[in-house]
Amino acid sequence: MDFSLSPALLELQQRTRRFIAEEVMPLERDPRQTVHGPSEALRGDLVARARAAGLLTPHASRELGGLGLSHVEKAIVFEEAGYSTLGPTALNIHAPDEGNIHLLEQVATPAQQERWLRPLVQGFTRSCFAMTEPAPGAGADPSMLATTAVRDGDEYVINGRKWFITGAEGAAFAIVMARMEDGSASMFLTDMDRPGIRIERLMDTLDHCFTGGHAVMSFENLRVPATDVLGELGKGFKYAQVRLAPARLTHCMRWLGQARRAHDEALAYARERQAFGKTLGEHQGVSFMLADNDMDLHTARLHIWHTAWLLDQGQKCNFESSRAKVVCSEAEWRVVDRCVQILGGQGVTGERIVARIFSDMRSFRIYDGPSEVHRHSMGRKIVAGRA
Amino acid sequence: MDFSLSPALLELQQRTRRFIAEEVMPLERDPRQTVHGPSEALRGDLVARARAAGLLTPHASRELGGLGLSHVEKAIVFEEAGYSTLGPTALNIHAPDEGNIHLLEQVATPAQQERWLRPLVQGFTRSCFAMTEPAPGAGADPSMLATTAVRDGDEYVINGRKWFITGAEGAAFAIVMARMEDGSASMFLTDMDRPGIRIERLMDTLDHCFTGGHAVMSFENLRVPATDVLGELGKGFKYAQVRLAPARLTHCMRWLGQARRAHDEALAYARERQAFGKTLGEHQGVSFMLADNDMDLHTARLHIWHTAWLLDQGQKCNFESSRAKVVCSEAEWRVVDRCVQILGGQGVTGERIVARIFSDMRSFRIYDGPSEVHRHSMGRKIVAGRA
Amino acid sequence: MDFSLSPALLELQQRTRRFIAEEVMPLERDPRQTVHGPSEALRGDLVARARAAGLLTPHASRELGGLGLSHVEKAIVFEEAGYSTLGPTALNIHAPDEGNIHLLEQVATPAQQERWLRPLVQGFTRSCFAMTEPAPGAGADPSMLATTAVRDGDEYVINGRKWFITGAEGAAFAIVMARMEDGSASMFLTDMDRPGIRIERLMDTLDHCFTGGHAVMSFENLRVPATDVLGELGKGFKYAQVRLAPARLTHCMRWLGQARRAHDEALAYARERQAFGKTLGEHQGVSFMLADNDMDLHTARLHIWHTAWLLDQGQKCNFESSRAKVVCSEAEWRVVDRCVQILGGQGVTGERIVARIFSDMRSFRIYDGPSEVHRHSMGRKIVAGRA
Amino acid sequence: MDFSLSPALLELQQRTRRFIAEEVMPLERDPRQTVHGPSEALRGDLVARARAAGLLTPHASRELGGLGLSHVEKAIVFEEAGYSTLGPTALNIHAPDEGNIHLLEQVATPAQQERWLRPLVQGFTRSCFAMTEPAPGAGADPSMLATTAVRDGDEYVINGRKWFITGAEGAAFAIVMARMEDGSASMFLTDMDRPGIRIERLMDTLDHCFTGGHAVMSFENLRVPATDVLGELGKGFKYAQVRLAPARLTHCMRWLGQARRAHDEALAYARERQAFGKTLGEHQGVSFMLADNDMDLHTARLHIWHTAWLLDQGQKCNFESSRAKVVCSEAEWRVVDRCVQILGGQGVTGERIVARIFSDMRSFRIYDGPSEVHRHSMGRKIVAGRA
Repeated sequence: MDFSLSPALLELQQRTRRFIAEEVMPLERDPRQTVHGPSEALRGDLVARARAAGLLTPHASRELGGLGLSHVEKAIVFEEAGYSTLGPTALNIHAPDEGNIHLLEQVATPAQQERWLRPLVQGFTRSCFAMTEPAPGAGADPSMLATTAVRDGDEYVINGRKWFITGAEGAAFAIVMARMEDGSASMFLTDMDRPGIRIERLMDTLDHCFTGGHAVMSFENLRVPATDVLGELGKGFKYAQVRLAPARLTHCMRWLGQARRAHDEALAYARERQAFGKTLGEHQGVSFMLADNDMDLHTARLHIWHTAWLLDQGQKCNFESSRAKVVCSEAEWRVVDRCVQILGGQGVTGERIVARIFSDMRSFRIYDGPSEVHRHSMGRKIVAGRA
Repeated sequence: MDFSLSPALLELQQRTRRFIAEEVMPLERDPRQTVHGPSEALRGDLVARARAAGLLTPHASRELGGLGLSHVEKAIVFEEAGYSTLGPTALNIHAPDEGNIHLLEQVATPAQQERWLRPLVQGFTRSCFAMTEPAPGAGADPSMLATTAVRDGDEYVINGRKWFITGAEGAAFAIVMARMEDGSASMFLTDMDRPGIRIERLMDTLDHCFTGGHAVMSFENLRVPATDVLGELGKGFKYAQVRLAPARLTHCMRWLGQARRAHDEALAYARERQAFGKTLGEHQGVSFMLADNDMDLHTARLHIWHTAWLLDQGQKCNFESSRAKVVCSEAEWRVVDRCVQILGGQGVTGERIVARIFSDMRSFRIYDGPSEVHRHSMGRKIVAGRA
Repeated sequence: MDFSLSPALLELQQRTRRFIAEEVMPLERDPRQTVHGPSEALRGDLVARARAAGLLTPHASRELGGLGLSHVEKAIVFEEAGYSTLGPTALNIHAPDEGNIHLLEQVATPAQQERWLRPLVQGFTRSCFAMTEPAPGAGADPSMLATTAVRDGDEYVINGRKWFITGAEGAAFAIVMARMEDGSASMFLTDMDRPGIRIERLMDTLDHCFTGGHAVMSFENLRVPATDVLGELGKGFKYAQVRLAPARLTHCMRWLGQARRAHDEALAYARERQAFGKTLGEHQGVSFMLADNDMDLHTARLHIWHTAWLLDQGQKCNFESSRAKVVCSEAEWRVVDRCVQILGGQGVTGERIVARIFSDMRSFRIYDGPSEVHRHSMGRKIVAGRA
Repeated sequence: MDFSLSPALLELQQRTRRFIAEEVMPLERDPRQTVHGPSEALRGDLVARARAAGLLTPHASRELGGLGLSHVEKAIVFEEAGYSTLGPTALNIHAPDEGNIHLLEQVATPAQQERWLRPLVQGFTRSCFAMTEPAPGAGADPSMLATTAVRDGDEYVINGRKWFITGAEGAAFAIVMARMEDGSASMFLTDMDRPGIRIERLMDTLDHCFTGGHAVMSFENLRVPATDVLGELGKGFKYAQVRLAPARLTHCMRWLGQARRAHDEALAYARERQAFGKTLGEHQGVSFMLADNDMDLHTARLHIWHTAWLLDQGQKCNFESSRAKVVCSEAEWRVVDRCVQILGGQGVTGERIVARIFSDMRSFRIYDGPSEVHRHSMGRKIVAGRA
């Protein structure tokens, strides 16, 4: 057993930390932030800075221009990036692009990679992942998928309605999940400017950290050439798993950075703010909260590291990534909630970035499977002896 | 012991419930809502409806045009009003006006009441309560009060800076807490259009339910005639307690209504939304959350009722109102957090009102004393045998 | 609404408190305590003291020699009795006798009452309630009842096996729940010295507070005359409900007394024990725990009072007694667990009575339906709109 | 980073697992168990089996006859040993001997090691660690040490009173902590059969797993030769830290085994016991508890591994061992409490070993520093920037 990090990784960690502190955090109150997330202009600025720093899209393969990070290496770098609300956007490691890049590297044809993946890795485009549907379609239960794809000559005709599609507004292309006539599911690649794709509206969400926000969109006789099927027909659910296990974990990593940031903000405040004759931090009640934060942050980090290492060993980690997702989303949430409490009035206002982190993070206990769905899945496997 | 409600109170409860359902809830998505809260125009509309329904300012005395509700009666009516995010605004029972009305009825001179209280009760004006200050002034610890009032002839000259002053923007008058030269504190009444009062900015807060939002404001040589001192000089901290114990409890009441609303929204969703072959509500994990909601709602309600009854018996209830505030703010928060979770994606978006309640309610665990300050105060009294 | 207690009830409360302090608590370390509970001799001594004090079996009707307490009155008196680990035994209000007395008063014939109920109320005998069975019989799910009763002439022949039968060893009679040939269930009264009743062994349990402990027992061709059927044939499950709703609540009352005792012990220790330069109670972390205790104790008390009042109004309270049972058993448990923690080493030893209360109370979250079964039942009713 | 275990360690893990299952678990209901713990005879039997299996005292150095395990290796082996309530006794890795062995290896002279350490490592003797004192002496706050050691010629004369001294009854020797005339503290070695050592009584404790139980003992003019000082004079508090950081962690390891055992027992029950038409494990409420168990077990394991690895790197880990102690003691406790709940009635009786684990484990949140003391210490270091 060895918890040490290689010198190269330590150097990358420090470099990322400096980049975030010097190039990204100063932009956190930039007016180009919209109610949905960083504007395209702000995103462009951030991406350019990461590109200049050699930190852009570090999880992509070296062939494509990334740093070819392993899962463990991502754990280190993504936590650092997450320290700023804008860090994941800057490094081009935010959902859904981060997961889409991973999936396309695994499954797309060389031609598809050249057309869609390369500019995505280079930070010139954004993408979206169109899976979730309004009732009675696929929500927490993906098997309820209602969007259909029907073969018509050399094309597939896609009809359906999606929502919570992160980053759809402004994305260059989409990966669309649809049900086939035989009941199986497939994934399709499509440019977003095709006829038949309509963004109905942006949703008003608690989080404000994704460029493009979250859209409701519909496909009305969208025609996709058969060559734009992603991977093999009928393997949609399988690919969703390929994408999901690591994608869950990268969420844990980024939000760990956010939770650590909140903790540092609360700690700085507790050190200086006086109440009842001493600093907040000298009140045992507050110091207990800081100790609990430390425990939760370290718990999250250890689960991330362990699961990342298992992924690096080639394991699928369906169970372990569920476990890490529940543990981390709940531990990181407790940290941020405590920080709000320590900051008092300032914790619920724009005076400090913690209120922002609080709003942004709440969804994390829900997306990529609510805690309840993961507990259900874990519990079943445990009872069945498959955990 | 008797938990029954009088026929008259039951009738008032039902009448309020209908009013909220028929006259207020239809306006919840009214575009006159601003990022800070209901606009003055929307507020005016709501108040007019309550006036027409005979439900305006029901806690004020009958002499002043209210219904002269006891604390227990307020518990019933305010919970109903709180069922809509706009209900407290409509009934003119929102912070800070609700508490200010209570304080002015107790302490103000007849002339002061005529000038400031009567139009406030009638819903024609709004007020603010200027106590909280930025560091190093009075936050959770009111004894750190830094704003000063110095006698100068027949006037007092007030200097200082306040923040988190709810409703200051647009208020007709303020109650200002300031430190006297002898170290004691006094309260002063002042119209808001006086020279020397400046609203620096509105704060960007998680809640969006108070008309006028929360302001940062400063007093620069504000001159207040000695006749506008509220009550007796030097009794500022005492009056703050007079105002606070019941004010804490009315927060508990209004937010109980909000938590019940969230529960009803989540319950309706759980009954209809399908996942994994049955409705959400048929999944035991979800049904346990609904059961926990019911327990928390009932716990909050019982604490409110009991403390209200003690107040009606003439007790000061400093300890009991602290206890009720912690129990209710935490129980009601758990309810809303569970509802977000049950609603899944919809819980974190504007698709349902629950995300709004979630954002609005978070501050409740902080204002009127964070949970930690109340636990501290309760613990000290328990150890000292004064609980 | 009225939370006041009548002068007569206040007097009874004080009288019970004095009796417990002066007559019962001095016996808490009496060597006649066995590993299972107070010995018969110790019980006899305690009961004699309560009889002399006019406090014996206060929930029984005045006709039978009790005080005819209402449910609300029981809430007051039983909490006081529960303040000592021996109090419920002294007042003859412990499980299962307390619930059996209630059931027999409601359902038994005059002759049955004369034969079995009167001496039970007078404290001269004990009884047991033989319902729970080992797997695959009736545990948390009573519908799995496996013990059978078959008509044979003027008698019923009962066969089956029961466990967790509190107080069976040394009981004068039993109420036996058995399944009829038509699938319904009935209750039977039987003296314990009949042929066909065998106590296999006493179970080794965490609690040590019930005279007679908990037995595994079997019925082998036990013959019961048809006149000894309790109430009507086939109404066993209904009667179990008649017995259960109030019985759950009296558990909550007695354990509330125990939790308050633990709190008082921990508080006394926190006031005197020094650590790190001040008393434990002056450490905010400990004072927060004491504040949380106060909140939990008051929450439990309010739920008990409200449900007791509903029962006094003639409501069945299946839902409400489930709710009170979960809330109280969990709140009271948290109190006792915190007290152990405050007492440190002494909390886990016989130096203080708290370790005893800790062991005794753990089962309360399980018997009369584990928390999970009540949450399940509550959740179903809420979803079905029947709560 | 590398979470893999060496083939040799994996083999040792499997060997220990088999030994526990085949040689130790069959003795769990052995009648030689006393109310305080395994009797000396039972302990002798267990130790002989471990000796025969080559698994005795595996943490001692190879020179002394152990396996010279690193901290990480201990994490693996001790968890396996902890799977049986008798495992730590069998392997001679239970408190206080385990920690005493560690301390003596670090600090004792060769002559002291030959005299006291060698037979202890060989399992022929037991030892005790006499530090904790009744009020107003050293409890959670070691600086309140009241036992004194006064130089008199070539000897020290020790007077004082200790309690919670695990294993004192039957121990061959003691390490005694006493205060010097200059206010510093020293440790002394003494055979237990010396005049001046009196075991006053054994304490009645919730746990029943330590041979010799926990004693109250007093030193009355105990004379110890100056050559029997352990290490350097005046370094008592420093040595206590040397002993404590790893000792805390080995507690976490052993109890992790116990918690895993409880989980396996509850899981087996949940798979077979029927209620309401399906197995317990098929009820989502129960399966969520099993999932939570898995999360807590894995969290504890990761904290143990990480802290053990840091210790292996030569770090002192005062902060990290506090953190691991709080996280593990609370996570493992939650697991066992849930298991009791899943097992229902059987969870609170001797029918299953889980009730025993429940009773045994409660003290773990208290000894070696209650959670509150560790949170206090962690919080102070965090605020001071020393964490």
